[in-house]
Amino acid sequence: MKDLVQSVELGVSQRRGGAATRPKVWLKNELVRVGLAEFLCTYVMMAFGLGSVAQVVTGQGAFGQYLSINLGFGLGVAMGVHVGGKVSGAHMNGAVSFTMCVFGRLAWKMLPLYLSAQLSGSFLAAGTIYAVYYEAINDYCGGNLTVTGAKATAGIFATYPAPYLSVMAGFIDQVFGTAMLLLCLMALSDQRNKPAVAGSEPAAVGFLVLLIGISLGSNSGYAINPTRDIAPRVFTAIAGWGADVFRSGNGWWWVPLVAPPIGGVLGAGVYKAFVELHHPLISEQCGGLMEEESAPLEKEQNICANVCV
Amino acid sequence: MKDLVQSVELGVSQRRGGAATRPKVWLKNELVRVGLAEFLCTYVMMAFGLGSVAQVVTGQGAFGQYLSINLGFGLGVAMGVHVGGKVSGAHMNGAVSFTMCVFGRLAWKMLPLYLSAQLSGSFLAAGTIYAVYYEAINDYCGGNLTVTGAKATAGIFATYPAPYLSVMAGFIDQVFGTAMLLLCLMALSDQRNKPAVAGSEPAAVGFLVLLIGISLGSNSGYAINPTRDIAPRVFTAIAGWGADVFRSGNGWWWVPLVAPPIGGVLGAGVYKAFVELHHPLISEQCGGLMEEESAPLEKEQNICANVCV
Amino acid sequence: MKDLVQSVELGVSQRRGGAATRPKVWLKNELVRVGLAEFLCTYVMMAFGLGSVAQVVTGQGAFGQYLSINLGFGLGVAMGVHVGGKVSGAHMNGAVSFTMCVFGRLAWKMLPLYLSAQLSGSFLAAGTIYAVYYEAINDYCGGNLTVTGAKATAGIFATYPAPYLSVMAGFIDQVFGTAMLLLCLMALSDQRNKPAVAGSEPAAVGFLVLLIGISLGSNSGYAINPTRDIAPRVFTAIAGWGADVFRSGNGWWWVPLVAPPIGGVLGAGVYKAFVELHHPLISEQCGGLMEEESAPLEKEQNICANVCV
Amino acid sequence: MKDLVQSVELGVSQRRGGAATRPKVWLKNELVRVGLAEFLCTYVMMAFGLGSVAQVVTGQGAFGQYLSINLGFGLGVAMGVHVGGKVSGAHMNGAVSFTMCVFGRLAWKMLPLYLSAQLSGSFLAAGTIYAVYYEAINDYCGGNLTVTGAKATAGIFATYPAPYLSVMAGFIDQVFGTAMLLLCLMALSDQRNKPAVAGSEPAAVGFLVLLIGISLGSNSGYAINPTRDIAPRVFTAIAGWGADVFRSGNGWWWVPLVAPPIGGVLGAGVYKAFVELHHPLISEQCGGLMEEESAPLEKEQNICANVCV
Repeated sequence: MKDLVQSVELGVSQRRGGAATRPKVWLKNELVRVGLAEFLCTYVMMAFGLGSVAQVVTGQGAFGQYLSINLGFGLGVAMGVHVGGKVSGAHMNGAVSFTMCVFGRLAWKMLPLYLSAQLSGSFLAAGTIYAVYYEAINDYCGGNLTVTGAKATAGIFATYPAPYLSVMAGFIDQVFGTAMLLLCLMALSDQRNKPAVAGSEPAAVGFLVLLIGISLGSNSGYAINPTRDIAPRVFTAIAGWGADVFRSGNGWWWVPLVAPPIGGVLGAGVYKAFVELHHPLISEQCGGLMEEESAPLEKEQNICANVCV
Repeated sequence: MKDLVQSVELGVSQRRGGAATRPKVWLKNELVRVGLAEFLCTYVMMAFGLGSVAQVVTGQGAFGQYLSINLGFGLGVAMGVHVGGKVSGAHMNGAVSFTMCVFGRLAWKMLPLYLSAQLSGSFLAAGTIYAVYYEAINDYCGGNLTVTGAKATAGIFATYPAPYLSVMAGFIDQVFGTAMLLLCLMALSDQRNKPAVAGSEPAAVGFLVLLIGISLGSNSGYAINPTRDIAPRVFTAIAGWGADVFRSGNGWWWVPLVAPPIGGVLGAGVYKAFVELHHPLISEQCGGLMEEESAPLEKEQNICANVCV
Repeated sequence: MKDLVQSVELGVSQRRGGAATRPKVWLKNELVRVGLAEFLCTYVMMAFGLGSVAQVVTGQGAFGQYLSINLGFGLGVAMGVHVGGKVSGAHMNGAVSFTMCVFGRLAWKMLPLYLSAQLSGSFLAAGTIYAVYYEAINDYCGGNLTVTGAKATAGIFATYPAPYLSVMAGFIDQVFGTAMLLLCLMALSDQRNKPAVAGSEPAAVGFLVLLIGISLGSNSGYAINPTRDIAPRVFTAIAGWGADVFRSGNGWWWVPLVAPPIGGVLGAGVYKAFVELHHPLISEQCGGLMEEESAPLEKEQNICANVCV
Repeated sequence: MKDLVQSVELGVSQRRGGAATRPKVWLKNELVRVGLAEFLCTYVMMAFGLGSVAQVVTGQGAFGQYLSINLGFGLGVAMGVHVGGKVSGAHMNGAVSFTMCVFGRLAWKMLPLYLSAQLSGSFLAAGTIYAVYYEAINDYCGGNLTVTGAKATAGIFATYPAPYLSVMAGFIDQVFGTAMLLLCLMALSDQRNKPAVAGSEPAAVGFLVLLIGISLGSNSGYAINPTRDIAPRVFTAIAGWGADVFRSGNGWWWVPLVAPPIGGVLGAGVYKAFVELHHPLISEQCGGLMEEESAPLEKEQNICANVCV
């Protein structure tokens, strides 16, 4: 997640050595580089995640349960961070990218690149899992691809709400789930608090997603991610499940698109308001030995390291 | 857990640079800062923990089992330590704060602040989970909020004893569970033994709570935490479950309030008596090169580091 | 997995001090050393992995489920990396060794040694687990060792496809599973991305194998490893299951032999094409302070460390 | 596990500063110190482990399954290493202490102290868990404490073989399980291979014990530890289960006493023979810059560190 910070620097072109003097070709290459990495890490995360759902659904209890799906997405996210971490920041989630933009950690002009990479990675992963589990799915549902009913299989790819859930309650569910995600991501990357130490970010983020699945998943399948949800949904609409994927759950499809970005900003804002804004000035932590109270964080830390530790 | 030590220094105002020369506004800010962090980390831990119970209960087996609840609280505690760790120490548990006070690691005057933050964080988390799972709970119990019976839902929020359990045995159960918690927390933070290394404290504490759930949970739901239990209980009393939440289990409600602080002091004391007190003097470890056998620990360590390592 | 890199150096004899000046006996000893370590780590991984299947199958639900098998192979791989990691690289998988050869990280002349060690380690592990679970297996199947049917036990040792799976689809399944394995292994060992940090490689690789079992296991038992599959299959053919182990699943036995090496090269190639090839030159990362753009990676990193960090 | 090495130094009194010049009172204090720590860490491990069995047995499926017991002992061992790690080495297992003695890593004269501490810690833990689960056990079995039958509860405390298991096969099972334990412990502490890095030993050893439970537990309950088994067995004989605890399973009780020490030496010896003995001389690793090929390991490492790294 320190990658989150990194991706900002990347987005606003503040890499050491000065981007100003670099030729345009460098910037273009940089975009390709970031886009490909974000695409691949999203693909890896989604292939593992959707694969775990396919296995549980078609296995009918013999190849894992709900916890397996939580582990599939949790460990899948961890592997995704390994695959794209230092290049693109491995957001793999449009709500994360959007929140980073809102809080100035990613340049707005980078957002379309991230969203495109995430959408195409998710779409291709849905296609791959459909191909790999093609015979399993057809054996399970007798070739009848449905969105609802006892042998429904659309839930392998996109999320659908529980029967009891109103759209309003589902909207709150998705806002809250994504808020918890971003709140904790902010904590995991806050170097002045108790962050995930260098190298442990993939595992920490993976455990966080596992935890959200265990705690906040039963209402509507914890999409907490617009790109993760819409791309596989479009794939299923094309691949044979039809327009029901948009009609089902009282037209549920737009909720995982709209609610997560709102929740993300909300959760990150709460962390900032309750913890980050109250960190003492570094100079104060050092015991008042320095004057430059308004020095930028990085500089402060270096100075502080020399003086205090 | 090194944070435990930290919170002491904080409590007794022994931060480097000298608090004596600081203006009153600093102290007030410090209290706000610590209180907000303790509130937020408790809220995060409780929202994840209670969410996992709500999901298991209302999911009727389709969304996790008892182990999911153990994971929900274990990983929830780990995330809580990330959220509040370096600011408040992330106790999230009145029995931990009380024990820290008894052993001089937290100033007594800080205790009300910690308890208030923990109680309000737990209360708000209970309210949030009730809102998020409102339709799920009502769908599960048909709108009939009960404390006992086949469709009881009060157990989502507070702990209740097993039918066979006497109050006396439950009291012992809570004393013992909290004793094991504090005994191990002392070990995890004992820098002269085999502690959780820097950065791994959230995971280590999370695994400890997971373990207590797996080993010591079936008798009465392992509250091992007065603030975690009473605040959601009060919430349910107000929200529709009524006075039964205090009557049920032969008036069980006071046991998770009284037993954990006793157990915490007992467990921490046992660790001190069996291990911590017997650590050789640093001067002895260094081979007798130094004279000041009674130097305070921190000083000793620095000297030792220079001389021996 | 840094071990992967290591095993290259080993294979091409570029160890510090210069192999050129070393006597032939050193090389021979080196081969013995590597072979024994690769044998032992494969044996350990396979004994734990096959043991977990034996326990689940003969325990009939009382001693674990499908997730136990995923954990058995995942943690078994982690232990194998501890056992052989720094000596042979702990491939424990013919497809990994083959892919390392293709990408120049292992000398082709070392491949037969690795394959022999992996095959003999797997064979002996199958024999050991058969001996340890001899009475359990006989009690379970009434002494009737079969490859198919309700009380089939051949699946304890080698993999067999699900009833619905065509050979073609199974081939794709094995190519894809192994591709994901190698893609992620490349990421875990890419020091310019977000690799598994030093010391965490065993756990990271173990979690990866656990994840593949959770996501891509139900079609055909995720062999994703030719040596892991064929050696125990030969053992069962000899030990009493007979030629059915080769006939079953439309002659499935050759698929885990042929598909994984193809998948491994494919997956590693995709990671290279999408991420590794696009890493900026180190000189560029350092801000253009250096000239030697084509210096080998290791040298570059040292220089960079001095100049930039 | 580096603690294993440590406990040697301790046992043979080679602590820095020279034990020769120390007064007898120091040695006596040292014995008390080690004994108390070994007692407490064994107690903690056993309380968590036996507690998890008690919960699964009396919970009848509602409070965990077989995997919970694996986690209870695995995480329990991890916590034990935190509690006693740097003081006694946290063997918590007579077979580990015995093997350390055989391979010269623990002085034989220390063995009785370790065994006494382990036996008394296990005995007291059995008593505690009986007290904590007293009402649960009586509610489950109707007050009828039996060793066999549908409502048997003796298995909460000591191990018993599966009905199909002959004593001979059980003996092999225990030799093999303990051999795998010590083989892997040797690897985890081998600083010239891929050991558990400093600080991760508790988790690594815990995962190893979890793995053994998942892979090698169904035959006879994976005691792989004489002191863990006999002390609770004696407790149950006294507490009401009677002499059946010794008669059951064709007089099974002596197998977990005799087989594990044999297996431990065997497994550690295999690791030595296949890996440890073949490590190149440090001088060779350093490229032949040094002469003293036969210098003791510790000295070699220091020299090597200066010259090579």
